Amino acid sequence: MNSVIELLQQHRSIRQFKPDPLTPEQIEAIVASAQMASTSSNVQAYTIIAVTNPAAKAELARLAGGQAYVEQCGLFLVFCADQYRLKLATEQSGETFHQNTESFIVSTVDAALAAQNASVAAESLGLGICYIGGIRNQPDEVSRLLELPELVYPVFGLCVGVPDQDPSLRPRLPLGAVLHQGAYDQDAIREGIRAYDDITHAYYKERTGGRTLTTWSKGIADKYKQPVRAHIRPFLEAKGFQLS
Amino acid sequence: MNSVIELLQQHRSIRQFKPDPLTPEQIEAIVASAQMASTSSNVQAYTIIAVTNPAAKAELARLAGGQAYVEQCGLFLVFCADQYRLKLATEQSGETFHQNTESFIVSTVDAALAAQNASVAAESLGLGICYIGGIRNQPDEVSRLLELPELVYPVFGLCVGVPDQDPSLRPRLPLGAVLHQGAYDQDAIREGIRAYDDITHAYYKERTGGRTLTTWSKGIADKYKQPVRAHIRPFLEAKGFQLS
Repeated sequence: MNSVIELLQQHRSIRQFKPDPLTPEQIEAIVASAQMASTSSNVQAYTIIAVTNPAAKAELARLAGGQAYVEQCGLFLVFCADQYRLKLATEQSGETFHQNTESFIVSTVDAALAAQNASVAAESLGLGICYIGGIRNQPDEVSRLLELPELVYPVFGLCVGVPDQDPSLRPRLPLGAVLHQGAYDQDAIREGIRAYDDITHAYYKERTGGRTLTTWSKGIADKYKQPVRAHIRPFLEAKGFQLS
Repeated sequence: MNSVIELLQQHRSIRQFKPDPLTPEQIEAIVASAQMASTSSNVQAYTIIAVTNPAAKAELARLAGGQAYVEQCGLFLVFCADQYRLKLATEQSGETFHQNTESFIVSTVDAALAAQNASVAAESLGLGICYIGGIRNQPDEVSRLLELPELVYPVFGLCVGVPDQDPSLRPRLPLGAVLHQGAYDQDAIREGIRAYDDITHAYYKERTGGRTLTTWSKGIADKYKQPVRAHIRPFLEAKGFQLS
C-alpha cells in the first residue's frame, strides 16, 4: 500500500461543489495527466471540451437530465471519442479513412483512459469529480452546443471542482465476482451477485435509515428491464459512425 | 504538481519484463484499485481474467500477434466488458434484459476506467504496464481460451510486471489539438496535426538515428487506409451483442 493506491481506493463521486473555479495550473496538470494515459497505437482518438461558461454549463446540466452539479462544478469537461482527427490525418496523405466497430471501440476506450487519468490527477489535488453519462441523454443537442463535427461523439462529461460534501465510499462487488483466475467462472458470478445483494441491502438500509430496502440486482433489473438510451445508435449513424 | 501527477505524467508502456511474478499483495492492491474506479450507475460491467499460467500466456501472446511481452510479464490481465452479469441480475428478478449500443458503450467504458486505475496502481508500485489491443486480433480464440460466456468480450489485455527496460516518454499531441474551450475547434485540430507531425518527425528521426523519417499523420494514414479488425462486429454479434 502506498499513497497513490490509498488515493485510488478512496474514490467516491462528488455531487455537490463549491463554486470556486479551478486555477489554470490545476487545469493544465489535469489535462496533461489525461494526455499521458495509454492510447491505442498512439492514435489519441479523443478530444476534451472544457466548459466553464455559466450559461453553457447550465444548458448542459439541463440536457444531462437536470443534474445541478454540472452547473455548480468549477470545470466541466466533455470527453469525446474523436475519429475526425484521424480522418483528417488520413486524407492529408491522400488516402481514404476506414472506420468500423473496431475504431469505435478504440476511440471510446482512448477517451475513457484519458478521463480516468484526469480524475486521478484532480483527486490528487484535493478536488472532487463525477462522471456524467447523462451527457448521452440528448447527444444531438450536446453535439450542436459543442459544435462537434462528424465522427466525434460525447462519451461522458466529467464534473471537476472543490467538494462541498464528504460522502462515504460505496461498496463494490466482491473480488471473486470481478477477478477470475485463468478463465471466466460463472459460478463465482452467481455467488458474487448473491453476496453483493446482501451487502448492498445492508448499505442502502443503513444509509436511508431503513427507508430503502433494495439490492444491487434489483437496481440492475429496474434499469435494464427496458431499453436504455435507444437513441444512441441512430445518433451515432447520423454523426457518420459506421458500426459495421 | 504533486507526486501522483508526476507518476501519471511519467507513463510509458513497458514491453520488456523480468520474469518475476507479482506478489499476492501487489495483485490485490492493483485489482482493489481497479474496482474503485467510477462506474456508470454502479453497474460495474466488466470482469478481469488474470492469466499467470505460462502455457496460457504463451498462447495469448501468439493470439495477440506474437507479442513476446504478453508471455514475459509476471501477470497478464484481460479486461472484459461484461453484460452477462447484468443479464443474470436482471433475469433473477424475473425481468428480460435489454441491451443495445448504449450498454455496449457503458460496459466498454467501465472496463477501461477500471484498467486505467489498475495501471496507475501498478506503476505506483514500481511495476510497468502495457495495454494489448492485439487481444482483439483473434477474439474468438481468446474467448474460447478464457471461456467467456455470451455478452462478454475481451476489450484489451494488460501486461503487468517488473520492467526490464527504461524507454523514453513519447510526445503527445499539442494541448491545443486535444483540449478545446467551449466548442470543438476544427482549426486547432488542423494546426495541431501540423505541429505534431513536426514533433513526431524529429522524435522518430532522433530515436532511430535518422533511419525512420515519418510523421504521426502518415502513421495514421497507413493504419486507417484499409479496414482494421473488420471481424470485430461479426464476432460481437456471435457473442450475443446487439449493436442496435
